[in-house]
Amino acid sequence: MSGNLQLYSYWRSSAAFRVRIALNLKGLAYETLPVHLLRDGGEQHSADYRQINPQQLVPVLRHGDRLLRQSLAILEYLEETWPQPPLLPADSRGRARVRGIANAIACDVHPLNNLRVLQYLERECEMGQDERDAWVRHWISEGFQAIEAMLGDHPSTGRFSEGDVPTMADCCIVPQVYNARRFGVDISAFPAIEQIERACLALPAFDAARPEKQPDSPSV
Amino acid sequence: MSGNLQLYSYWRSSAAFRVRIALNLKGLAYETLPVHLLRDGGEQHSADYRQINPQQLVPVLRHGDRLLRQSLAILEYLEETWPQPPLLPADSRGRARVRGIANAIACDVHPLNNLRVLQYLERECEMGQDERDAWVRHWISEGFQAIEAMLGDHPSTGRFSEGDVPTMADCCIVPQVYNARRFGVDISAFPAIEQIERACLALPAFDAARPEKQPDSPSV
Repeated sequence: MSGNLQLYSYWRSSAAFRVRIALNLKGLAYETLPVHLLRDGGEQHSADYRQINPQQLVPVLRHGDRLLRQSLAILEYLEETWPQPPLLPADSRGRARVRGIANAIACDVHPLNNLRVLQYLERECEMGQDERDAWVRHWISEGFQAIEAMLGDHPSTGRFSEGDVPTMADCCIVPQVYNARRFGVDISAFPAIEQIERACLALPAFDAARPEKQPDSPSV
Repeated sequence: MSGNLQLYSYWRSSAAFRVRIALNLKGLAYETLPVHLLRDGGEQHSADYRQINPQQLVPVLRHGDRLLRQSLAILEYLEETWPQPPLLPADSRGRARVRGIANAIACDVHPLNNLRVLQYLERECEMGQDERDAWVRHWISEGFQAIEAMLGDHPSTGRFSEGDVPTMADCCIVPQVYNARRFGVDISAFPAIEQIERACLALPAFDAARPEKQPDSPSV
């Protein structure tokens, strides 16, 4: 029984996408509470939402009276609270590898390219659209080169990043590939990543978490 | 017994600093393998080190024949492998809070300000020193405002971020405060963070992990 789960989310947020995948993989029903990151200067900056998350970012997961922040911390919480099916391997080596890949994306790729950073580059640094897009592509490409090296040449890579069941690493890879495509990165340069993304999106849990299938997506 | 632990580190790396603190708190002896991030264009970019870490970042922890990457993944590995003393609380609420604070720093503050980003801003965006320093101060200040709100007004904050024993959150806060001071952020604006830093640095485990006490520090 999942109790009462509500996800403060934005359809195109890569970090919220990770949590949606994990909730779906765990088979947990949840209610989406949309936070529109662009409307009215950004609903994440409202006084009400700052009470929910002083970082003014999505996602936040509400579980009963608990507010859980930061996508990777939420994935760990889901794993501890609802262990089945596991999103981490049983062995410590594998767990460290999965967390290493997840963090390589969640720390060193995604935060450089999220909305608040692009807004700062535009407003404070007067950086034009082309230069901002090049910035995004640079950090994604650099990160993906490293991750491709970790995945492509490793005996424990299987259908997914670690073996043949999806893990937290895959919860991070798929949203990052979505972002990469959005900004025109050529994913075919990263065949291991591309193959894992394909295997993931064949699963209903990943498919249902896609941005364009969210209730707050303009295409719904 | 710790087996054979070796840390690829740079004295002033904030992420390596986190791992040094955790190793010390766990009472684990380790050998420092310095990677000079500035010498010869950056030793982290050498062919040899790219075999150690395709991300070309420190830290990496070598444990026997295992290579462990990403500071937060390494902290989790240490916690699982040597559970005592714990760096996470026993309850799931507290664990999520600690990981949320750790990730707020490790994902949303630090990566925006590390060396490779500042080098890109200088070389590709022709951003001057003053503007780069303002960039760093902006992201630290924004992050610290949020974390101060999480810490200052929360019943489970104690001498440390969560209660009266140091956790992964503190392993991240102390190095980030070091960085903040280095770039001229006024820490007195964040009294809860400042008080936690003071309590941490009074512990030998934190003190011995300071940049200026590392074997590769110019001051040693």
